[in-house]
Amino acid sequence: MENRGSSDSPASEGLGKQRLEALMDGIFAIAMTLLVLDVKLPATPKSADITELTRVLLELWPRFLVFFASFVILGVLWIGQIGYFHFVKRTNRWFLWLSLLFLMFIVFIPFSTDLLGRYPMNAAAIVIYGCNALLLEITLFLQWHYATHARRLVGAELETELVARGNKRMLAGICMYSTAIIFAFLIPPASLTLFVLIPVMYILPSRVDYHWTHSHG
Amino acid sequence: MENRGSSDSPASEGLGKQRLEALMDGIFAIAMTLLVLDVKLPATPKSADITELTRVLLELWPRFLVFFASFVILGVLWIGQIGYFHFVKRTNRWFLWLSLLFLMFIVFIPFSTDLLGRYPMNAAAIVIYGCNALLLEITLFLQWHYATHARRLVGAELETELVARGNKRMLAGICMYSTAIIFAFLIPPASLTLFVLIPVMYILPSRVDYHWTHSHG
Amino acid sequence: MENRGSSDSPASEGLGKQRLEALMDGIFAIAMTLLVLDVKLPATPKSADITELTRVLLELWPRFLVFFASFVILGVLWIGQIGYFHFVKRTNRWFLWLSLLFLMFIVFIPFSTDLLGRYPMNAAAIVIYGCNALLLEITLFLQWHYATHARRLVGAELETELVARGNKRMLAGICMYSTAIIFAFLIPPASLTLFVLIPVMYILPSRVDYHWTHSHG
Amino acid sequence: MENRGSSDSPASEGLGKQRLEALMDGIFAIAMTLLVLDVKLPATPKSADITELTRVLLELWPRFLVFFASFVILGVLWIGQIGYFHFVKRTNRWFLWLSLLFLMFIVFIPFSTDLLGRYPMNAAAIVIYGCNALLLEITLFLQWHYATHARRLVGAELETELVARGNKRMLAGICMYSTAIIFAFLIPPASLTLFVLIPVMYILPSRVDYHWTHSHG
Repeated sequence: MENRGSSDSPASEGLGKQRLEALMDGIFAIAMTLLVLDVKLPATPKSADITELTRVLLELWPRFLVFFASFVILGVLWIGQIGYFHFVKRTNRWFLWLSLLFLMFIVFIPFSTDLLGRYPMNAAAIVIYGCNALLLEITLFLQWHYATHARRLVGAELETELVARGNKRMLAGICMYSTAIIFAFLIPPASLTLFVLIPVMYILPSRVDYHWTHSHG
Repeated sequence: MENRGSSDSPASEGLGKQRLEALMDGIFAIAMTLLVLDVKLPATPKSADITELTRVLLELWPRFLVFFASFVILGVLWIGQIGYFHFVKRTNRWFLWLSLLFLMFIVFIPFSTDLLGRYPMNAAAIVIYGCNALLLEITLFLQWHYATHARRLVGAELETELVARGNKRMLAGICMYSTAIIFAFLIPPASLTLFVLIPVMYILPSRVDYHWTHSHG
Repeated sequence: MENRGSSDSPASEGLGKQRLEALMDGIFAIAMTLLVLDVKLPATPKSADITELTRVLLELWPRFLVFFASFVILGVLWIGQIGYFHFVKRTNRWFLWLSLLFLMFIVFIPFSTDLLGRYPMNAAAIVIYGCNALLLEITLFLQWHYATHARRLVGAELETELVARGNKRMLAGICMYSTAIIFAFLIPPASLTLFVLIPVMYILPSRVDYHWTHSHG
Repeated sequence: MENRGSSDSPASEGLGKQRLEALMDGIFAIAMTLLVLDVKLPATPKSADITELTRVLLELWPRFLVFFASFVILGVLWIGQIGYFHFVKRTNRWFLWLSLLFLMFIVFIPFSTDLLGRYPMNAAAIVIYGCNALLLEITLFLQWHYATHARRLVGAELETELVARGNKRMLAGICMYSTAIIFAFLIPPASLTLFVLIPVMYILPSRVDYHWTHSHG
């Protein structure tokens, strides 16, 4: 059932969230697809044999790695975000602006991942990448906090435990990315290790998932 | 309520608005994402240290500013537009063409923002940017006027007060952008100040928002 | 009626059309947005004054014209297509492939419009542009014919008169574009005039619109 | 409430599939549209006559062919995927990640098709293209297997025969692409022939289609 702003229950009153979801899915889809444009075969003679072409392709590995890493990060954020949006029932002007802030930092991910891929040991690149990820975690947290505070944009029946679990999960991300940024000036490889480990942690199922399978519709 | 062509109320007869909304969200998503493609790191040696890379990044600030400004403007227009579309129940050929005109000027925003970012004190750039914004306000106003006149594409129960408030809000934008264009030839900095202040004014909640929370679905 | 997989009427059985509509709206949105990427300001000194910048912008007029023309053509096709899709209730494999063919020619419009914009008097450019438009009309006609023949993918209650009107409208387009292609070798300006007039003809409301306002949902 | 497809049955509980479908349609739409960006007219004098322009266009034929081939392959995969998604009722974290893997290989298709178009007889290019196609078939199979195993994400009433038919169809694709990869080192033209024949085979209607017309909604 659609409920685009329909009024069959108090929870669904107000501005629907479908337009926002459509914008989000569009921006994620484009950001993910644009990533491959950075993977370009350098000019190679038409007569290249298998050895030569293989060599050229192997030399492209940092581009492939950046592509893969960016895709995974965008995937983590997309799944994280639909997980929380599942419980959001309606939107308002402030929530839309928080979401647009979140999307602005999403759009920036290809830039900062590319920068990190080129200068993995440079503290400036690590800080920019870390701040981008940190700002994404913060805006995601603000959205969740704003929506759930006093059950502003979620159903009144939403369990307090679920709200707290979402908060904890995002605050953990904020702490970890802050730590990674601090390490940039001390032990750069530690920052890079955290950048790899944090998404992996979020790929694993969480106890929030349990709630998806019990309709809060 | 969705009303994808369904017929449960007179207001929902006719062509649905979902396809139009999908096209709009798609175009906004792409326009917003393409903005970051203009933020490109200039060729920098692989061996750049933190000082050098920081300097290169700081020199990119006009690009970052244009990116941020364009994103905010597109955000203002997207939120404004979904606010009004909330009350629109159906479409017809003329309304679709008004919407396509609106979208054509949206697609143009990256071009004119980029132009203004490069020549902020040049009256030609200010006029082009101002006209783009003005035409957006005008087409948005025409959409709203066309849809609400004699309750053509909105519900019959829509309050006259809300219609008037929407009209006023958009006519104010038209006046302000016209003023900014005139200032281009007299005091360019005054135009630029208006270009910054007008979106800010639209970010703030308006009394139109109140109606979102009271279902006109 | 939505019928996202639901089964409340025989007409809605089978594979829904929402995924196809989503793909179509996405492709139109991207094709429309990509058009502006061809409008690029040539390298101009930072110190350019208003006269110089105005001159550079005026020299861009063929780019603006191509942008505007392509946008209008895509708009005509998008509106035409949603008009017919309004009556389509379900899809099947053959219909999906016909739609993908249509979309393939849509994706090609930026290429052929750009070609025509650069060589407006060259018969080769006119033929390519004309064939692209012709193939779009043909695939749109095939979709409509396939969907309505024996009421295959439309509601059983659809009036024969409406089916015939749709057929006529699209066959007229096929004849006109064929004529324009033939003129390419005889009187190129006549082809160009037709290329401008045909979309204008389709912008005007048609008697098909009447049916939109009388629910066939 | 999300549940497009309503909550009247246990099968529709849990996280909806609409966001995933929106992301998929967005990524397919962008990948299909980006293909045309590779078809670029080389710099040609403004004064080119019809013979010269025709020659330039004819020399572009490998680009046109790659465009056409990529579009057909993406079309086959899009239709295949919506066919199976028709029966999927809900998603979970693992299924979303399987789908993102699938989408990552979709995003890669323009790169590997372009590579094959430039080096059609080079085993390295054949292997990369073949592996991309193979990984797409494998991830599609894993999605289907994961969703249907113990009726995890599909309706409980889904016929075992349909599940088996889907499995067979995808395993056949996996075998054929594996064969094509092996031939790359022995008889490259045999690989290319398979690359053409496999999509053709999937364009033809299958017995899975029959089920679309009998509502499992």
